[in-house]
Amino acid sequence: MVILQLSLPTPVNPQTNGAITGLTSTCQKRSSKFHSTLPPRLFITNSHESQYPFSLFHPANEGVAAIVFGDGSESRLYPLTKRRSAGAIPIAANYRLVDAVVSNCITSNINKIYALTQCNSASLNSHLSKAYSGLGLGKEGLVEVIAAYQSPEYEGWFQGAADAVRRCLWVMEEYPVSEFLILPGHHLYKMDYQKIIEAHRNSKADITIAALGASRDQDPGFGFLTVNSENQVLEFRLKSESKPISFVSEETSRKCNDISNCYSSMGIYLINKDTVVKLLREHFPKANDFASEVIPGAISIGMKVQGFIFNEYWEDMRSIEAFYQANMESTKKANMGFNFFDIESPMYTLPRCLPSTLITDAVITDSVIGGGCILNRCKIKGTVVGMRAKIREGAVIEDSVIMGSDVYQMEDIQCGMNKNGIDIPIGIGEDTQIRKAIVDKNARIGKNVLIINKDNVQEGNNEANGFIISGGIVVVLRSAVVPDGTIV
Amino acid sequence: MVILQLSLPTPVNPQTNGAITGLTSTCQKRSSKFHSTLPPRLFITNSHESQYPFSLFHPANEGVAAIVFGDGSESRLYPLTKRRSAGAIPIAANYRLVDAVVSNCITSNINKIYALTQCNSASLNSHLSKAYSGLGLGKEGLVEVIAAYQSPEYEGWFQGAADAVRRCLWVMEEYPVSEFLILPGHHLYKMDYQKIIEAHRNSKADITIAALGASRDQDPGFGFLTVNSENQVLEFRLKSESKPISFVSEETSRKCNDISNCYSSMGIYLINKDTVVKLLREHFPKANDFASEVIPGAISIGMKVQGFIFNEYWEDMRSIEAFYQANMESTKKANMGFNFFDIESPMYTLPRCLPSTLITDAVITDSVIGGGCILNRCKIKGTVVGMRAKIREGAVIEDSVIMGSDVYQMEDIQCGMNKNGIDIPIGIGEDTQIRKAIVDKNARIGKNVLIINKDNVQEGNNEANGFIISGGIVVVLRSAVVPDGTIV
Amino acid sequence: MVILQLSLPTPVNPQTNGAITGLTSTCQKRSSKFHSTLPPRLFITNSHESQYPFSLFHPANEGVAAIVFGDGSESRLYPLTKRRSAGAIPIAANYRLVDAVVSNCITSNINKIYALTQCNSASLNSHLSKAYSGLGLGKEGLVEVIAAYQSPEYEGWFQGAADAVRRCLWVMEEYPVSEFLILPGHHLYKMDYQKIIEAHRNSKADITIAALGASRDQDPGFGFLTVNSENQVLEFRLKSESKPISFVSEETSRKCNDISNCYSSMGIYLINKDTVVKLLREHFPKANDFASEVIPGAISIGMKVQGFIFNEYWEDMRSIEAFYQANMESTKKANMGFNFFDIESPMYTLPRCLPSTLITDAVITDSVIGGGCILNRCKIKGTVVGMRAKIREGAVIEDSVIMGSDVYQMEDIQCGMNKNGIDIPIGIGEDTQIRKAIVDKNARIGKNVLIINKDNVQEGNNEANGFIISGGIVVVLRSAVVPDGTIV
Amino acid sequence: MVILQLSLPTPVNPQTNGAITGLTSTCQKRSSKFHSTLPPRLFITNSHESQYPFSLFHPANEGVAAIVFGDGSESRLYPLTKRRSAGAIPIAANYRLVDAVVSNCITSNINKIYALTQCNSASLNSHLSKAYSGLGLGKEGLVEVIAAYQSPEYEGWFQGAADAVRRCLWVMEEYPVSEFLILPGHHLYKMDYQKIIEAHRNSKADITIAALGASRDQDPGFGFLTVNSENQVLEFRLKSESKPISFVSEETSRKCNDISNCYSSMGIYLINKDTVVKLLREHFPKANDFASEVIPGAISIGMKVQGFIFNEYWEDMRSIEAFYQANMESTKKANMGFNFFDIESPMYTLPRCLPSTLITDAVITDSVIGGGCILNRCKIKGTVVGMRAKIREGAVIEDSVIMGSDVYQMEDIQCGMNKNGIDIPIGIGEDTQIRKAIVDKNARIGKNVLIINKDNVQEGNNEANGFIISGGIVVVLRSAVVPDGTIV
Repeated sequence: MVILQLSLPTPVNPQTNGAITGLTSTCQKRSSKFHSTLPPRLFITNSHESQYPFSLFHPANEGVAAIVFGDGSESRLYPLTKRRSAGAIPIAANYRLVDAVVSNCITSNINKIYALTQCNSASLNSHLSKAYSGLGLGKEGLVEVIAAYQSPEYEGWFQGAADAVRRCLWVMEEYPVSEFLILPGHHLYKMDYQKIIEAHRNSKADITIAALGASRDQDPGFGFLTVNSENQVLEFRLKSESKPISFVSEETSRKCNDISNCYSSMGIYLINKDTVVKLLREHFPKANDFASEVIPGAISIGMKVQGFIFNEYWEDMRSIEAFYQANMESTKKANMGFNFFDIESPMYTLPRCLPSTLITDAVITDSVIGGGCILNRCKIKGTVVGMRAKIREGAVIEDSVIMGSDVYQMEDIQCGMNKNGIDIPIGIGEDTQIRKAIVDKNARIGKNVLIINKDNVQEGNNEANGFIISGGIVVVLRSAVVPDGTIV
Repeated sequence: MVILQLSLPTPVNPQTNGAITGLTSTCQKRSSKFHSTLPPRLFITNSHESQYPFSLFHPANEGVAAIVFGDGSESRLYPLTKRRSAGAIPIAANYRLVDAVVSNCITSNINKIYALTQCNSASLNSHLSKAYSGLGLGKEGLVEVIAAYQSPEYEGWFQGAADAVRRCLWVMEEYPVSEFLILPGHHLYKMDYQKIIEAHRNSKADITIAALGASRDQDPGFGFLTVNSENQVLEFRLKSESKPISFVSEETSRKCNDISNCYSSMGIYLINKDTVVKLLREHFPKANDFASEVIPGAISIGMKVQGFIFNEYWEDMRSIEAFYQANMESTKKANMGFNFFDIESPMYTLPRCLPSTLITDAVITDSVIGGGCILNRCKIKGTVVGMRAKIREGAVIEDSVIMGSDVYQMEDIQCGMNKNGIDIPIGIGEDTQIRKAIVDKNARIGKNVLIINKDNVQEGNNEANGFIISGGIVVVLRSAVVPDGTIV
Repeated sequence: MVILQLSLPTPVNPQTNGAITGLTSTCQKRSSKFHSTLPPRLFITNSHESQYPFSLFHPANEGVAAIVFGDGSESRLYPLTKRRSAGAIPIAANYRLVDAVVSNCITSNINKIYALTQCNSASLNSHLSKAYSGLGLGKEGLVEVIAAYQSPEYEGWFQGAADAVRRCLWVMEEYPVSEFLILPGHHLYKMDYQKIIEAHRNSKADITIAALGASRDQDPGFGFLTVNSENQVLEFRLKSESKPISFVSEETSRKCNDISNCYSSMGIYLINKDTVVKLLREHFPKANDFASEVIPGAISIGMKVQGFIFNEYWEDMRSIEAFYQANMESTKKANMGFNFFDIESPMYTLPRCLPSTLITDAVITDSVIGGGCILNRCKIKGTVVGMRAKIREGAVIEDSVIMGSDVYQMEDIQCGMNKNGIDIPIGIGEDTQIRKAIVDKNARIGKNVLIINKDNVQEGNNEANGFIISGGIVVVLRSAVVPDGTIV
Repeated sequence: MVILQLSLPTPVNPQTNGAITGLTSTCQKRSSKFHSTLPPRLFITNSHESQYPFSLFHPANEGVAAIVFGDGSESRLYPLTKRRSAGAIPIAANYRLVDAVVSNCITSNINKIYALTQCNSASLNSHLSKAYSGLGLGKEGLVEVIAAYQSPEYEGWFQGAADAVRRCLWVMEEYPVSEFLILPGHHLYKMDYQKIIEAHRNSKADITIAALGASRDQDPGFGFLTVNSENQVLEFRLKSESKPISFVSEETSRKCNDISNCYSSMGIYLINKDTVVKLLREHFPKANDFASEVIPGAISIGMKVQGFIFNEYWEDMRSIEAFYQANMESTKKANMGFNFFDIESPMYTLPRCLPSTLITDAVITDSVIGGGCILNRCKIKGTVVGMRAKIREGAVIEDSVIMGSDVYQMEDIQCGMNKNGIDIPIGIGEDTQIRKAIVDKNARIGKNVLIINKDNVQEGNNEANGFIISGGIVVVLRSAVVPDGTIV
């Protein structure tokens, strides 16, 4: 018998909540409400055995469908997420965040991906559909987007990642697979999922959780797990400042003393298909979240839960600063982070036929330049310059992320009027200087503008004037108009 | 100057409401709740003129984007809409309802379609993405699905068609068009939209409404309009049993006496882009619906609203019976209805590479057969047989719609257990007889079943046993299992 | 050391030659010219070892590119090949012959196919490009067509399959593979090529040849091979009425006495990439053909050549009759031949969105019906009815292959005038009877026509009147016009 | 009656020949054979009238199929055409030459393009198939490649553009059009073909020829035409140094004295479909070329031939120098030539998902940069840098065209050995300087190389060492290896 207190939001930092659940029931706008609830208590009642003998399995590239969550660190990445979900944020000029996870799936020979989306999903759905939903030889498309929807049974939104999976199970059940691979869609990393699939099948686990070495200076918010020498998860707990919530399996009550066996979860779960169905429909039919409810619940009822340790580059985009750093990494030649030029595991995205980038007398240092840009007599250093960016004469851009534009403007059609009635076109104006900033798409930045965080503000919201400051980084909003001569 | 009453929601049958608004705020399951609200009051201040002189317009095939609503007669078409929106219902074996409207757009050289979806949208979104979202020469895809989504500003669902357009305007505004063509996505008809565009531009209207001759014995629920000799709309009213709500334009208060000038709206609106923006953001920022709020409001403030009369086949799928009849039409050689074989205006859908249909000793009369069927020694008459349908020996199907299956089953994998533990495969079993029925996809109908509406029931809900009866037509639910020997 | 004779062209039936070489230097029109040439003489200098240790190999689905020959039994399948190559002939209503081999590649996870074409290649190139050349996630397309071309170095046509591979090597070399899989493109069979790849790599062979049990009553014309208990090819010879040409490997001179170890080659060769390069550029730079020159040459210089025995359905379409029989097989429920409905190894082709087939009062027995047909009050038995076929009232079709049409005709546009000036539309006319015939695409067969091979002719050419007879089967030519009342 | 002496090659500069015929019978390798033949003599016999009254025509975007020739200035553009046809040469970093003409068709709403190819066609066919042959909504693909092929009737290659059209007519006839638009595929210009279509239909011409003002300093080689005030062609002649060949229409024998009415043909012909059929099959069944045979022949028999004067940028790539200049134009901001950034008439090509370009400390002036480049501490000025180009530290590139690479190399896999056994990777080596050169794809240029045309050679062939010089421009061949320290 199991007693589970299901709370939502869970007793963790609510900004973390977005990342935990993948899909929150409400898109939060940088709120900071804290809740205090008692941790759920779990009693283990019986053990459970995997139904599939290994010999029946297909090769690793068959039999697994991925479930990707388009939502993620929405509130933490505001205002980049004002009009788009975390997965749709442009990164490294030519890509969107979600491309990293989809590319991992392609490289790992996973041919079916369900993308579950809800918050500000228009851009993400559009990107995924255009890039990955095409037919391809009469087969099903690679990515199938399942946007949150109303139905006669459920009138509300998805209440969390587990609820989303439960409500979409009727669609996903039809595809003949043995396991589902549940993936947050806004993380940047390269993983060959075939390895976790192989480990999962070899260990005959019900659930395998990918986890990072705990020594990393990160707060993934997906919980922590302690494993034994066979990588079986002995304990799973969500981080809490006051008091750890721990779920100890029946098999052992040994305390997690050995810090070397403690890892932080990456929010990646490989679960047998029938295990998912039983967990969500029978055992925990009201659970909304995996990390706080379903996973500890599964351990509590004796399911075999394994850990899969991952020690390479992984970035969960837990803040504007983390996003900024990931972009900065991409501008370095011998990058320590994510290799966008790797021919073994290429990064896929929407193929485009943009014009070549036209550069007039520019000095460009340690930068990444997207397609179709027009760069005129400017200085660019340590900067990511996105597609169709237009940077005008005399501009100096340093250590910044310029996301570019969705469209080209005809020069004679001026649509952005500033307060003085002077037109400001999309792009960066003449003699403007930008340092350590993120300029979102379609922004219209005038002439002689200084965006240098003059007063060295760490956090500040000036959304009315088109920007906010987060972690000392100025973020100019999408389609914002910054008049000539503005100093930030 | 005139004072007008606008009501929201309007005092009409809420089941009609679905069809009126295109998108209802809640997916209703054949409910019948009535609401009574006070109407908002509006004061007209000035007249409005179209901003675009005709000479600046692009050719008809440019400058117009379509906005298609995927939702429609959800409650009226239940249970076909239990798991899918009205636009996703299969029709005439190879198609889905929404294909008719999308095909009209293609034939009319409209290259951009926004599909706004909310209720049970998974199948519809998937169909539209696979069939029409592909890149196509680096251009944007033809159809862009915008599923209802949460955002920091709006946490709720779309509250109606006008609300949906308002909330998605930021996406659709970016595409350079002069007019939006608003279309219900679940109607079956062929219209060259270039004609309504030409009429609209020639008359320099703000809004042009497509309308049917009032003489038709239909209740479209999109309201009624009276026009003068220049097709200007003088009066627009929603049908009401008690008392007509009438909106008389400022220009004239002449009563709609001449019945010959009264037409029923098809829910198709061609509206100038800037008119849409002003109506939804400035004039009626809280209006949720077009037919009951925005359109009469526009007339009331003096906008130029034109009618465009359409006199060809049109079917709004207002009931199971109407849907059934539209399918029956497709089985007739000299069909009076919708011509699926027309080479001038072909019907598009998701291209497939199904096997050819294999027929063993069948007598087939006045029927339409989809791809990849297997028909064994059966009699089929006046029936639509959908893709991958499997009809076994001795079966007799008459005047029915068999929707077929999404997948092929391996014969040795039996997944549908009936109460007696006997396996029933997908398809129609041996010696089963079906007459005047709709069998939804993936149904498993056993041997010696009789689905003939033996007791001539007109309306009946037996969902627990896998079927309902509507208008005398038996509808077997999607994936229902009907045991051997069952008699309905 | 051995001295071997290689002959070019070989002294076999030149009609067989088409099938042997895959690509003949000239498209023959049922000619029968015999050539007599002196064989080149070759001296072996050193042995050769495979360069790739097994452990370095990628998984079977990587590292192999297929080379498919579009040409084949051109002269034997005339007049079906009058305007198209053998691979482009429609089969089983919805497919073209080459789809079988391409589908095998897809099922076997081979992601790169080069199609080398030369004879009447327009239809085949068009089909392959539309169906399989699409981008697919920024990867290279699946099929890359390399049509015969002129270049400054080579002004002539491909002189045979080996010459074609040699001249296209510069293209194919760029793709990073370890082996090429050489495949005739006009054979009908299902093979998991992963098995031959595995066998090839396990045996560390230079070349592996797929072969059929010799007991089969077929004359594939690709030569015969004798293997030892490890499946190593000891002897390879082309059939010859007068005197067998035998190539005995250096390793052994044991005679092929044991008939049970003799197999007929399927013309399928798996060859290491560097072996291909060396064989075609260094060892036999003037060899045009694989079966008569390159393969025996490789054995003669001591390369390791293995056999891979295949015992399932295989049809090489060596005659009109064989093609006819393969179609007849597809109409049988429990077909002994090629299963077009197999969900494990589906048959791919160009996806289409044809209308559903409309059937008015037809009796259909043991037949296969393609998409978009219109069948009016006709009797169809044991027949393959291709896409868009139109069969009019009173027609009786038995044991035939009706290929259908590429287009729909508007009924009022009549393009086919018969001798009496009466229009005959595409399709089968009223009250016409057809038995044991093949009616090619777009044929216009009038009313009251009898195509029954009245005089039981076995072979006859009446091309001027639109048909020939081959093996007792009447073949009506593509776009032929058969006037009302004609009796064949 | 007509007597035509058909000569091939025609009595013009044979290097011009390639451009004249579009498709020559033999791919020439910079040969210089001159032939002297008598000009054909033409006698006009009867007049001819267009069959289509204007009112029956469809809108301009329907009813026209384009026929594009992939071959062109093969011999003049050698060695860029060593392995590819002229249309496949990369231009302006992201494009291939043929994209210009295909993009014109797309912008002009022409939905069907037949590409006839023969010389070195592999790259061009592959590019066209991947980029433009996809299905697109169940419609036919945009571009259908018809590569030269053998058939029982014709065993030889296409003998010229007219012969190619004649032999492919059976394919192109099936598409329902009223006119064919014949286009050389290797010219760079923007034209709205709808204008020539409109002019053609308004004048009820049989043939309309696009022509440039004669004042231009170009030698297009497509012939010259003199028109009257209604733009009717009075005289058509091929340029000849010795003596003009003139074809004077029956209607007038007036000499072309008025130089202002003399124009040079662009090789673009809009011809009524039935006119094409009659000209090629009935009137001139042995004519191989349009400019020298069919067009003057049509005038001679009294057909109505109109001129359509075009006065914008047009470049026929008649030499390496012309190709080089067109690339240089693309690097200028206010380019006088071809605008690759025009949003009204965008340039299409194969969509790609290359990584963003990574730039480490570069000074870039007046240059165009393709996708996926890696540029390390280099100076680039007035240069086109193609896709995946890798330019290493210290390199200085000026006024050059660097075509980049088809693939990425893994740095540890070194495939290019120079004479001293030192590996040279693809790209431009450290401290290398390149000025006024064209570096073809996949070239491996070592360190400290100087490619500056030190001796100011105008013409020179050093193919053995990987380059030639043409018009003072050094052209490094595709995949050439240039050792460290080389000085050119």
